[in-house]
This record gives sequence, C-alpha cells and structure tokens, in this order.
Amino acid sequence: MTTYRTEQDYIGEKKVPKEAYYGIQTVRAVENFPITGYPPHKEIIRGFGFVKKAAALANRDVGGLHPDLAEAIVEASEEVLNGDFDSEFIVDAIQGGAGTSFNMNANEVIANRAIERLGYEKGDYARLSPNTHVNMAQSTNDTFPTAIHIASIRLAQGLEKALKDIIEAFKEKERAFDDVLKMGRTHLQDAVPIRLGQEMGAYRRVLERDLKRLRRSLDHLYSINMGATAVGTGLNAQPEYIKKVTEHLCDITEMPFYQADDLVDATQNTDAYTELSSSLKVLAINLSKMANDLRMMSSGPRTGLNEINLPSRQPGSSIMPGKVNPVMCEVINQISFQVMGNDQTVSAASEAGQLELNVMGPVLVFNLLESLSVLQNGLNVFREYAVEGMNANVEHCREMVEQSVGIITAINPHVGYETASRIAREAIETGRSVREICIERSILTKKELDEILDAKEMTKPGIAGAHFMYQ
Amino acid sequence: MTTYRTEQDYIGEKKVPKEAYYGIQTVRAVENFPITGYPPHKEIIRGFGFVKKAAALANRDVGGLHPDLAEAIVEASEEVLNGDFDSEFIVDAIQGGAGTSFNMNANEVIANRAIERLGYEKGDYARLSPNTHVNMAQSTNDTFPTAIHIASIRLAQGLEKALKDIIEAFKEKERAFDDVLKMGRTHLQDAVPIRLGQEMGAYRRVLERDLKRLRRSLDHLYSINMGATAVGTGLNAQPEYIKKVTEHLCDITEMPFYQADDLVDATQNTDAYTELSSSLKVLAINLSKMANDLRMMSSGPRTGLNEINLPSRQPGSSIMPGKVNPVMCEVINQISFQVMGNDQTVSAASEAGQLELNVMGPVLVFNLLESLSVLQNGLNVFREYAVEGMNANVEHCREMVEQSVGIITAINPHVGYETASRIAREAIETGRSVREICIERSILTKKELDEILDAKEMTKPGIAGAHFMYQ
Amino acid sequence: MTTYRTEQDYIGEKKVPKEAYYGIQTVRAVENFPITGYPPHKEIIRGFGFVKKAAALANRDVGGLHPDLAEAIVEASEEVLNGDFDSEFIVDAIQGGAGTSFNMNANEVIANRAIERLGYEKGDYARLSPNTHVNMAQSTNDTFPTAIHIASIRLAQGLEKALKDIIEAFKEKERAFDDVLKMGRTHLQDAVPIRLGQEMGAYRRVLERDLKRLRRSLDHLYSINMGATAVGTGLNAQPEYIKKVTEHLCDITEMPFYQADDLVDATQNTDAYTELSSSLKVLAINLSKMANDLRMMSSGPRTGLNEINLPSRQPGSSIMPGKVNPVMCEVINQISFQVMGNDQTVSAASEAGQLELNVMGPVLVFNLLESLSVLQNGLNVFREYAVEGMNANVEHCREMVEQSVGIITAINPHVGYETASRIAREAIETGRSVREICIERSILTKKELDEILDAKEMTKPGIAGAHFMYQ
Amino acid sequence: MTTYRTEQDYIGEKKVPKEAYYGIQTVRAVENFPITGYPPHKEIIRGFGFVKKAAALANRDVGGLHPDLAEAIVEASEEVLNGDFDSEFIVDAIQGGAGTSFNMNANEVIANRAIERLGYEKGDYARLSPNTHVNMAQSTNDTFPTAIHIASIRLAQGLEKALKDIIEAFKEKERAFDDVLKMGRTHLQDAVPIRLGQEMGAYRRVLERDLKRLRRSLDHLYSINMGATAVGTGLNAQPEYIKKVTEHLCDITEMPFYQADDLVDATQNTDAYTELSSSLKVLAINLSKMANDLRMMSSGPRTGLNEINLPSRQPGSSIMPGKVNPVMCEVINQISFQVMGNDQTVSAASEAGQLELNVMGPVLVFNLLESLSVLQNGLNVFREYAVEGMNANVEHCREMVEQSVGIITAINPHVGYETASRIAREAIETGRSVREICIERSILTKKELDEILDAKEMTKPGIAGAHFMYQ
Repeated sequence: MTTYRTEQDYIGEKKVPKEAYYGIQTVRAVENFPITGYPPHKEIIRGFGFVKKAAALANRDVGGLHPDLAEAIVEASEEVLNGDFDSEFIVDAIQGGAGTSFNMNANEVIANRAIERLGYEKGDYARLSPNTHVNMAQSTNDTFPTAIHIASIRLAQGLEKALKDIIEAFKEKERAFDDVLKMGRTHLQDAVPIRLGQEMGAYRRVLERDLKRLRRSLDHLYSINMGATAVGTGLNAQPEYIKKVTEHLCDITEMPFYQADDLVDATQNTDAYTELSSSLKVLAINLSKMANDLRMMSSGPRTGLNEINLPSRQPGSSIMPGKVNPVMCEVINQISFQVMGNDQTVSAASEAGQLELNVMGPVLVFNLLESLSVLQNGLNVFREYAVEGMNANVEHCREMVEQSVGIITAINPHVGYETASRIAREAIETGRSVREICIERSILTKKELDEILDAKEMTKPGIAGAHFMYQ
Repeated sequence: MTTYRTEQDYIGEKKVPKEAYYGIQTVRAVENFPITGYPPHKEIIRGFGFVKKAAALANRDVGGLHPDLAEAIVEASEEVLNGDFDSEFIVDAIQGGAGTSFNMNANEVIANRAIERLGYEKGDYARLSPNTHVNMAQSTNDTFPTAIHIASIRLAQGLEKALKDIIEAFKEKERAFDDVLKMGRTHLQDAVPIRLGQEMGAYRRVLERDLKRLRRSLDHLYSINMGATAVGTGLNAQPEYIKKVTEHLCDITEMPFYQADDLVDATQNTDAYTELSSSLKVLAINLSKMANDLRMMSSGPRTGLNEINLPSRQPGSSIMPGKVNPVMCEVINQISFQVMGNDQTVSAASEAGQLELNVMGPVLVFNLLESLSVLQNGLNVFREYAVEGMNANVEHCREMVEQSVGIITAINPHVGYETASRIAREAIETGRSVREICIERSILTKKELDEILDAKEMTKPGIAGAHFMYQ
Repeated sequence: MTTYRTEQDYIGEKKVPKEAYYGIQTVRAVENFPITGYPPHKEIIRGFGFVKKAAALANRDVGGLHPDLAEAIVEASEEVLNGDFDSEFIVDAIQGGAGTSFNMNANEVIANRAIERLGYEKGDYARLSPNTHVNMAQSTNDTFPTAIHIASIRLAQGLEKALKDIIEAFKEKERAFDDVLKMGRTHLQDAVPIRLGQEMGAYRRVLERDLKRLRRSLDHLYSINMGATAVGTGLNAQPEYIKKVTEHLCDITEMPFYQADDLVDATQNTDAYTELSSSLKVLAINLSKMANDLRMMSSGPRTGLNEINLPSRQPGSSIMPGKVNPVMCEVINQISFQVMGNDQTVSAASEAGQLELNVMGPVLVFNLLESLSVLQNGLNVFREYAVEGMNANVEHCREMVEQSVGIITAINPHVGYETASRIAREAIETGRSVREICIERSILTKKELDEILDAKEMTKPGIAGAHFMYQ
Repeated sequence: MTTYRTEQDYIGEKKVPKEAYYGIQTVRAVENFPITGYPPHKEIIRGFGFVKKAAALANRDVGGLHPDLAEAIVEASEEVLNGDFDSEFIVDAIQGGAGTSFNMNANEVIANRAIERLGYEKGDYARLSPNTHVNMAQSTNDTFPTAIHIASIRLAQGLEKALKDIIEAFKEKERAFDDVLKMGRTHLQDAVPIRLGQEMGAYRRVLERDLKRLRRSLDHLYSINMGATAVGTGLNAQPEYIKKVTEHLCDITEMPFYQADDLVDATQNTDAYTELSSSLKVLAINLSKMANDLRMMSSGPRTGLNEINLPSRQPGSSIMPGKVNPVMCEVINQISFQVMGNDQTVSAASEAGQLELNVMGPVLVFNLLESLSVLQNGLNVFREYAVEGMNANVEHCREMVEQSVGIITAINPHVGYETASRIAREAIETGRSVREICIERSILTKKELDEILDAKEMTKPGIAGAHFMYQ
C-alpha cells in the first residue's frame, strides 16, 4: 500500500508518495497533463542534470549557496545525469507552462535526493529547497533552453556519426559499382546511360552536404542563456555567477558553450531550434528521395526494373509466399515523413512565441529530439541492413542500355536534333534499334556508330566521334 | 500625362488619378502593400459585386438608402460583377487589414461609378459616399467573408464539373481495360495478377469520394454573416435589413444562402475555409498518387514497366531526340504540391484568428481560391490530354504476369505457406517458373496447376482449385 | 537466464525467448526497426484482436479451418483484445513493410497462445501455424487497414464524448456570462462592445461544427476491405468467407461495418485516414485560436487585459513567486501544433501510396491515432481545469467599454462616417470621451447619446436611436 | 487579324502567330498547361538570358558554333536578359516537364530574335535552330537549374539589402527606447521589468542571425551544373566547353559561380533549394513572432496594452470611424504564412525527385522565388511604414511596471521563494502593492525596498540589495 507525505505550495496541498523523489509540483503537473503518456526524452533529463550541477557549483563559487548544500546538489545532479533517477521524471512530454514542470520535476528530484544524502527525510525542504537552493539564480526560462541545447547537441553528435558511417558505405558502393553500366532515367523515361557507381556517388555527395548543414546548424546551440533568469535581463543572477555557470557547464559537458551576446534575445527566440529542425527536414527529404530510388531500382524480381538487390531482411507478406520487400527503404521513407511533420510542429511552436518567452517549448523539443533520434536510428539500420549488402544485376543493367533508344542522344551532334528525333521515333514505334536504322539509312557507318555509341564513354563528358564530326 | 484629383480621409490627403474609379483608400493600400504583384482573384471582385448589390437593395427596402442612390449603386455593382471594372481592382492579393482594402476598393469603385451614372464627377462623395452609402450597414467583416463564400462556391462548382468529367473518363477506361491482365504490385514488388480496368476503377472510386467530400465541404459556406457588421453583434444593422440582404443575395446569386445561426461565431471563425481547403488537400493527395502510378506504369519505353502509353503532348527533351515525357501527370503532381502548401498557409492563417476577427483573411483566401482554380484547370487538361487517350500494352502486360513468381500465392491454400515459400524462393533464385518446379517436385499435377494458375481467375475473390483441395 | 527456442522461415533461423508468445517474424522486425522505441498504439492491438477473431469464425463457417483450431484462435484473440498480451506486441510503431510486422506479431502471439491452449509447446507451428491458420484468407493488406479502422473509430468515440462535454461546458459559460459586457476587439484594437457570453457561444458553435465534421469523417471508416487479401482482388478468399468475416466483425465490435464496394480501391487508397486527420486538424486550429483568446483575455493580472480568470492549476514560475500561468490553454496550443504536424505526416504518407498498396501505413496510423488520443486527453483536462472554473472580472470589463472610443460606431448612422471619424480621432488624441466631445460640439444631445450609447443595446442587431434619425 | 506561320516537330505541326518570337514548343506548352495564369518569374527569364549567352560564347570558343551564329545568339540573349522580350515568355509558372517548356521557350525566342538579326524570317530554323544551336551542348536539366541559381541569388541579394535596412531600423529603435521601462511578460502574464530598447535589440539580433543564415544558404547555389546535359554525365558536352561556359557565366553575371564537383549529383538533387527555402521559413517564423509582438504592444488605444504606437497608414475600418489597425504587421504575418506554405510545397517537390532528375522544378522554383520576392517586398514596407515611425507611450509603460506584482521577484533572494510567494498572492488578491505589504509585515524596510525595487536595476543582471543580504 502506497503511503504518502503531504507537501504544499501557494496554491494548496498535495499528497506525494512517501518514497518519491519528485514532489508537489510534479504531482500537479502529472494531474494537469495526462496527454501523450510519454515521459521527457532521456536526453532532456541528462541536460537538466548537467545544468543543475553547473548552477550549484557557480552558486557556491559566488557565495550564494553553502558548500555543504552545493555538494549535495552536485552529487544528486550527477546521479540524475547518469540516468539513475529516470523513473522519477514523470511529467508528460507535452505540457503547458513552458517547461516549468520539467524544471520543477528536476528541482524536486535533485532536492530530495540531496536532502536524503544530507541525512534528512524527503520533503524536508527547510533543509534544502527545490526553488530556493536547487533553482538558485535560475529560471525555467534559462535552464530549460540550456538543457535543450545540451540534449540536441548530444543527439546531433550521434546523428553525425550515423551520417559519416552511411557516407562511407555509399563511398564503398561508388567504388564497387563504378563499372556497372545502366540506363539513366529522367521523368521515369529512358534517358542516356549512366554508371551505378555515379548514382551511389550522388547519394554520397548530398549526404555530405547534409552533414555540413547539420554541423552548421549546431553553431547557434553553443550559445546559451544561463543567467538570463525570467526574461533575459538577468534579474537575481549576479554577473560573476553567470560567468561561472557557463564555465562549469563547459567543463562538465566538454562542449564549447558560451554566454549568449544578448540574453533577452536568447530567452525569447527559438530560431536555433527551427534552424536545426530545418536541416533535419532537408536531410529527411534527401533520404526519402534516395530510399525511393533504391526501392524503384530493386523493383521486381521479374516485372520491375530489377537493377539492384537489397538484402532480404524479413518475409514480406503474410499471404504471398517468398515475397521480400524493401523494408529498410520503406522505414526510411516513413522516418522522413515523421521528420517533415515534426518540423511542421516545431515551426508552428516557434512562431507562437510571444514577447519575452516562447511557452511552446515542450512540444517543440519533443518533436526536435524525436527527429534527431529517429534519423540516427534509421540511418544506422538502413546502412547496415540495406546499403552495405546491396548488389547489382550487372548483366540485366547492361542489356537494358543496349536495347534502349536513349543512346540516340549521342548521335545528336552528328546529325542534328531534328534528324535524330525522326530516327528515335521510328525506333520506338517499330521496336528496331537505333543502330540498325542509322545503318540502313546510311546516316552513319558501322564504324562511326561503334565509336559514337560506346555506352561507357557516354557516361563521361565529351562528344563521342567529335574528331570526325569536325572534319 | 496623368492628371489627378485630391481625396482626403481622417489620416490626410492623397492624389488619385482623375480617371480612376478607385479612390484614396485604394491608393493608400497600393502604397502600403506592394507584395505579390497579383490583383485579387477575379471571383472575389465578382463576389463583392453581388454583395454590394444585395446590400443596396436591402438598405433601400428598409428605408436606409434613398431609391435613387440605391439604383445607382445597384447598377454600378452589376457592372462590377460582370467584370467591367476588373482593372480598377488594384490592391494586392496579400495585404494587411483583414480585407478592408478589398472592401474599400469595391466601395470606391462602385461609389464613383454610381456618382458618374448620377451625372456627377468622380470623387464627389457628398453626392454618394463609399462608406456611408455603398457600405451602409456593412463592415469588411461581413462583406468580405460573404464575398469569399460566393467566390469559393462558384469556383467549387467548376471543380465539381471537372471532377465529374474525369470520373467519367476513368469509368470509360475501366470498361476499356477490363480484360487487360497485368501484374499487381505491392511495395513495388511483384505481387499477384490484377486487371488494368480494376486499377482504373480504383482511381474512379476515390475521385467519387473526393467529389462527395467537396460537396459536403460547401455546406457551411452557404451560411453567411451579412448583417454581422463589425464583430458579429449586428450593431448598425437593422434586423429587417439582415433578413432582406440575405434574401436578395439568394435571388441574385441563385444560391441557397442563409443567415448564420450565430453572427458572432460566423464573423470570427474561419473553419468553413479550412474545411474546404482540407478537402482540396485530400483530393490533391489522391491525384498525386494517381499521377505517380500512371507515370510509373508508362515508364519506358524500353527499360521501364511499359504497361500503358500516354498521349504524346510535346517533345520531352531539348537534348534527347524523340523523348516524350508524362508531362500531364507531372503537372498534376505539381498542382498537388501547390495545393498541399496552400493548405498549410490556409491552416496557419486560420489559426491566427484573434478574438472577434481573423485578420489573416487575404492570404487565406488567396491560397484557397488558387487551390480551387489550379485543381479545376489541372483536372481538365489531365483528363483531356492524358486519361482519355491512354492505351495499354496488352501483350506485354500479359507476358509479365506469366513470367512472374507472385502467382505462387494461388498455390498457397493447397500446399501451405511454408512449402509455397520454398518453391517461390527457388523460382526467384534459379529463374525457373513456379509451374515447372511444382511439376518437377510432384507437388501438383499439370491439370491442377492449369486450374489454380488461371491468371484471370486470380483477379477475383475465390480459391482456385478449392474443389479438389477439400476432397 | 533467458532460454530460447529456435524458429525458422524461408530467410533463415532466429532464436526466440522460450517464454515469448511472439515468434521469429517479430524478432526480425525488432531487429530491423529500432526506431522510435514506442510499441504499437494499444488500440491497434485491440483492432487485430477483433480482426483475427472474426476471421477465424468466418474461416470455420466456410469450412476452411477445423473447429478446434478455430476455437483456440478465437479464444486467444479475445485475450489479445482484452489487453492480456499487450507486452508481447513489441514491434516498433514506425516500421517498414506496410504493417506486415504488426500482422505477423499478431499472428504469432495468437498462434502460440492458441497452441498453448491446445496443450502444445509454443513454437510448434505444425499444430497451428501463424500464417496458414491464424492468417487464413487474410493479408496484412486487409487486416491492418481493418484494425486501423476499428482503432480509429474507438478513439474517435472517446473524442466525440470529450467534445460533447466541452460543448456543454461552454454552453454553461454562455449562460453564466450572458450579461458580462466587454469590449469587442478586431485587429487587437478596440472595436465595439460585445458580451462575454457571446464569445463563449462562438466557441461552442465552432466546436459543434467540429463534432459534426468528426462524425462525418467516420463514414468512410465503416467501409472495410476484409477479403481483399493481397491487392484487393480477393485471391484466396472465398466470397462466402468475405461476407461472413464482415458480419462477424460487426457482431463482435458492435459497429456497423460493411464490405467496401470495391476492394481494390479500398486496399490502395488511404483517403479515409487523410479525411479524418484533416478534420482533426481543423478542430486543432479552432482549439488553438480559442486557447489563444483565453490566454489573452486572462492576461495580467495587472498589466494585461485581465477580463477573465482561469483556475490556478500550478505555480507558474520557478523564480517569480506567486505567478500563475494559463497552462491548460498552453497545453491545448501545443496539442494543436502536434496535431497539425501529425496531419502533415499523414498527408505525406498518404501521397506516397503506389499502385496496389500504400506501404507507409505504420507512420500514418502512428500519427493519426496519436492525434485522436492527445485531442481527447487535452480536451478533457482543458474543460475540467480551465473552462469550467473560469470566471469574469465583470466590473473591469464594463469600465473598459465605458472608456473606449469604439462606441463611436453607434453614432455613425446619425452623423455619417466622416464626421464620426473626426470625433473619434479627437477622442483618441486628447484622451477625452466621445460623449463629451459630441455634447461640446452640439452634435447630439445628452438624451440622444444616452440612447445611442447604451452599451448593451450595441451588442444586438439594430440602429440605436433609429427613431429620431429618420424623423 | 492574327496571321500565322506553321512550325513542326516530331509530334506534328502547330500554328504560331507570325509576329511571335516564341515557336511551336511554346505553343504546345501553353495548350498543355493553362494552370495558374502566371508567367514565369521575371528573374527566371533573366536567368535564361545569362545562361544562353554564356553557352553561345563557350560553344563559339570550342568551335562548336559558328561565330556569326554565336554573335546573333549572344545579342538576342542580351535583349532577353534586359527584359526586352518578357512578353514572349508565356508558358505557365506551373507546368509538367521539369522546366523543358521554359527552356524551349527561351531557345525559341532567342533563336527567332537571332534569326531576325541575321536578316531572315522568324521560323526559318534551317538558318539557326532553337535546339541544335541555341541549346547546343545543353539540356533543360542543366540550363534550368542554372537559371534558377542565378534568379535565386539575385533575389536573395535584394532580400539581404532589405534585411540589413530593417536591422538598422531596429538598432535605431534600440537606442531610442533604451530608457523606456516597461513590464516584461511571459505566458502573457506580468513577469519582471524590461526596457523597450532591450526588446528591440532582441528583434535586431534574431534578424542578424537570419541574415547570416540567408548568406550561408547561398553557398551551395554558386555551384552550378552547366555541362551536365541530360543526366549529369556530360554527354555531348566537351570538357573544354564546360570549363568555358562556367567562366563566361561568372563574367557576365559577376557572381562567383563554379562547376559542381559532381554533375550527376548536381543534376538530381535539389537540396540547395530546400536549404534556401528553409532559411526563408525560419526568417518568416521570426518575423511573424515579431509582428505579433508589435501588434500586441500597440493594442488599444484604450483597452489594450497600449505600450507603443505604430504609424497610421490607412483607415482601419469601413464601419468603425477613426479606427486604425496595425496593417503593416498584419501583412508581415500573412507573408510569413505564405512563405511557410511555400516551403511546404518546395519540400514536397524536392522529395519527389526520382533517379537522375527532379521533374518538379517548376512548382518548386515558383514557390521559392515567390518567397524571396514577398519577403523582400514585405520587409521594405514594414520597415518604412511601421518600424521607423514607431513610438512609445513612456509614461503608461512606467505606470504599469509600478503597479505590477512581478517585481516581487527581486525580493525573492532576500526572503526566499516561499515567503515571497505568499506576499505576491496577497498582493494579487487584495489589489495592494508588494511594497506596502512588505512594510506592513516588517519584512523589509522602506530603505531596503527602495534599493531592491529599483525597476531600472531590475533590467540588468544582479541581485539588488545583495550587499545587505550577505551581511
């Protein structure tokens, strides 16, 4: 049977489970916000652990917090950032109040754990108060954004790693497929030859730009607003404390944070998040296009393009025996749609900031961190289970080039667009080959055609047969 | 050389071109809002013509407006709704002020035209005032929404027609292709046989639901808020006028408008537009899927699926002779993306309403009416230039079914999923046919297979060979 | 120490925890899709329970499934739909494969539980096979959509209830605040008087339309595609079975499902979901506007509009003592943004359908069901903790009306727009009252003004003082 | 009466108005795509002028094009880029075909103008052919993207200028309002004092980041794919030509273009556009928040916050005399919504790329360029007509600070969060001042309170009265 302690605030009293490290504010928030059923992202909990530790150290340094209390808070914060108290963070991911309930939850868990370490009973806030001591010289409006920055950067580092790994995987495929000649397609219509390696290279390149974009998007996240307190003016935060808290945070996170140039700006504007979310959206768009390509190229096995094979990961149908689907590509498409929708939510939440604060932080950060997580997770399995094991149906690819009409393009410079067009239409309508028609009509000799229609040459800049054309 | 007259309002004076029917408010708006360069949608101009005519008649009826002035306003309004003064509507499609500048522009053009008809000089507002007379008992906040309703319904009627026509076109294809057996695909992978006519039928069916959704979405648009005046309370509008203005509007538009149950609600809420825009978005999504399918089925001519042929509408490449692309499908995809983006803008604008009014009407209506227009335009050319002339490569479709492995599914009930799976994998890996393997392994007899693997039968509910299975 | 059993399929072997009810397909999916960390929505699990039970009964009826096996499957399905096996549904909410892994997970859990009930060991699929027996005459492509329909309708029923309740709450406020005169505002600028009850009525009305929209959106969800099997052609499903399975489903869900007119259409098109999601988006937009209004009207306590008070739900600041924030409105705004983003994902997923199937179902349904859930949850707490306890600062509201300039509008019909404008500007610039200026200038008498400026009269249609105006 | 010439291509014949510079391909496109009624953005026409000139020069340099023909093409291209032939560009902004019709339209206009300059009749393509000569060594797939890059950069330069100007305007306000003390608000609730200049500074700062983001987003646009031809492999383009064409383009545009590292990548990926569009979206979000703030701060005149005044730009109501609305802010909100919707369309179009090409370029570029244009236009009028002329109601702002309860926060460090909370609630409930209660209860002395409650000090970091607190 659960036993309770009673806590109070200026609104009234609430019962709190006796063993709980959280307190009355957390209980209120749980009652107010039974929305998604999801707890805060673990990295947000970590972020608060870092922030509260740094703040306690800085408050101790400037004489605001007694060293004994500071030590207890620091140790409790370390436990939080190590994940030892994750189950005490029970407020819903989507909540009103600009993240106040996250901060209150963190203050309470750390306070009660610190109180316990000091040898007292949980709830004995006369010893050490969540708001007066753990939250000293802080506001939700500086600690929550700072925790978000830490969480975002940590997740982005994982995503960077995943991106680098998949770039390497595509680089490997670029090399492996360098000689695989296949039909290039535009508008899904036969165009001119290309090499499969070139396609892999195009995927690699765009991901390299995505990596660059991701890194750039982190720049503004290293700027933090600790010391801003309520509205960015720094009320109740001594300048020395502001300097110290940022230094401590750098030390303990090993990240190059710096104090925002303008704390008012840094407290009310959320463009650093929309910027990051936008980069993730651009990445998602690129990935979805790529996944679509791979799904199309692997379509078949008998009645599709059948140019490549993706590893078989699971039976693809509960009714069609032997069917295998490109499930790893499909999950990438879906992750992309999720990230695109999340970006929409992030944008709406960001636009809804008013005056000194954006109170829509919780839903914003819920979506931002989810995007970071699912992209990282998705890229890793996509690479491991789809890209790395992909192989090409080399012969089939070559045959399709040979039977195509698109190679007529190489003849273009020799006979002009209009004549070439007539040959092409005839080939398409009769089913005959371009080569055959050219010879029959004495348009080009067999020898000239051999040179002009060298498919591999067509995959590089240049006019095949230019030497006899200019004679 | 342009000569000018001077007009004034409580903010100051402005020069107005002497020949212009618009006046000072329009000049101010042009100066304030040089945003898109687009004028208001023509149907909005028409809408104001209807509204101002109805209001003048109603004001005359209740004795608020002298019959001579009323007559002049009515006649001027008729010219506006006939499109005779379109070039005088020069305020930008995107503007601040909740549409006030549209209403003011209409008031001024109608006033000056009426003044002219009465035998006076344009600008002589002592004779007949844009605000006191043309706008009598009205506000932007009731006339602009009502004009939007009229415009939306008129455009929606055109879209309904376009939808009905393309539904007929697909119905025709459904009949024409009823016997075209082809490979069904899920996950872009070979699945089980289907008939091309069945696919056409699926396109028809979803468009029929879209038509139903479109019609339903118009329901709330027949509710109008004339008489609401500034905030919906009806201040300065006599009850008898409100009754009359709605009746006159029904008469002259021949549409079944009725007075909103609650004018305060009808003045501040824009859900009728978001509802309509959402229906258009759903239609757009369905069309885009359909266009994608047709592009894929017509891919080739040599190295794609090549199941159907779309009419050649234009040379498809400036460099590749003879290439023809599915351009009518591509424009449908793009229209769909436009409509999806427009819905996003409509949603954001709708969410931004505050208290008694949504001032974001101009951008909302700009996007809503554009969606209605481009969908109608797109559907008509898509039908005429792509759907109606589409034909099938019947033989190729049948060959693909015959060489597929997916037909193994029909064998499933006879041998169980596990055995069937082994046969399928062997077929895929060796390139041999399912039939061949079954016979070789004595799994089924040739006679049984003939019955089970009847491709056309596979396109209908039932278990082929069920009779010997249950023996 | 976990012990394992070994299972195999045509791709290979996998170890499965000995005690697990799920099997090899589930294990594969868990390995392939470690994406969000979220399991399927509980209502999807329920949905599969209903579907598998109905299918087993129908297969028994038509003689496809031995009564003993059927009975075991039915009983196991009932346990699933009662939630007894939720912890065995471990595949990720976002996954490749069009929901195949959800269906396979369901087939395996039900098969193993049925096997156990029959007295055998889990994994002994020779007794009863997940694919051959539990999935008999079914495909992911009919069972998953049907499970989604069931889940959506069940959640929508909860949302309907929540909507009805909040409509009642606003109706109560409409009555309670019927006499509270306050300033109406357009463009956030003082407009003309309105009653707070009228504003509450406007919220009620739009929610009533939302309720109607929600109900309408369910229409298409009662159409289900059981029997469609792989691509909608019904291959391997006997007509009698199709009829029976739909009947059984109606019986056990007590919902009026019917077989889709066209199973091919119903298998490939996802417009029923986008339609529902769109309705939820429209609701979300309306709620967000409403929440914004309430936040603005309750702004203060000293330096804002301060027209209404919302119940104090929790201390609003970790640094500013005594501060209370409109957190229940804020959570509604955030839920709205979430739903708008979810609709974006649903739309993108729907657009990505190809040919006979939309494989993006998992991400689509994840977002759709989340929207349904968070709206219901949010509405309930918003009603209980914000709307029901709201009260008005009646005196302050009245004072603001009295000191406003906006009441000049009522004078308009008596003196003309131009004269009224001059009085208004003078009042604004000098800080004097409209009444005072009118009397000083002998524009209207005190007696006339008393009648014209009766604020309560201004909140109803009509021209105050019309009787002496027309003399 | 229009007379016609007849032109033909491999699809058939078409009549072209005799005087027209455009030709058969343009006529076909006009017939196929009557979608929006909008012509291509003028900057796209300019872009093609630059591209075609550079290509003619390069083709001449490498001996592919006879100098006489080259000269004629160059001169015609110059006329196009000077805008002399804008009225000949008549294909619709939204069209199928990946921009082929834009390119064909440009090829035809330039060819016919060059033919005319050479002394022949329009349509005499034997002299100089649109495809063989004007389009030599080019494809739509390299010329259209390059024209987009040029257009985007030129428009972005205008936007940069507009951003710099408004940043200066806010900087000026920051200085002017440095001493204007006002109430800071979070959650729309009274928080702690801030200076109006600090708020202006926050607007400036976020716009400075937007400027930085915009510039960064242009980086990838300097990479162009001229020479890529059909699919990026450079077929039919000699390496020397590719080098030359890029050099010529740099010369004549005076922009630092360079050849893309990988032409295949540069031809199929559209991330450079989504990246730019995303930056515009982030800017739009920030602007909308800013416009909302200014609208709220200027709310009133009597019953709103009334902290600032925006210049009166136009009468704000057709019914409420003297009303003036924040129309310049409202147009910024609407532009923001437009840009957010456009970004949605750009994203969907970008995601729809397939294999070697993204055929959705037309709708993508239509939206991208519109966003660039409307943002520039909007920022200029917003700055000129709203920001520059804004002034503050200094006294009213100060009075609101003085009567607020939020100043209790400064007392917090002296008495603890819990005691401060009690004082605050008492003040709110009784309407008394914090100062009064503190003195009455002997919590702090008048002298201490004078020091602690110095409002201006509260707008800077620090703990007021810290010196006696630590005694």
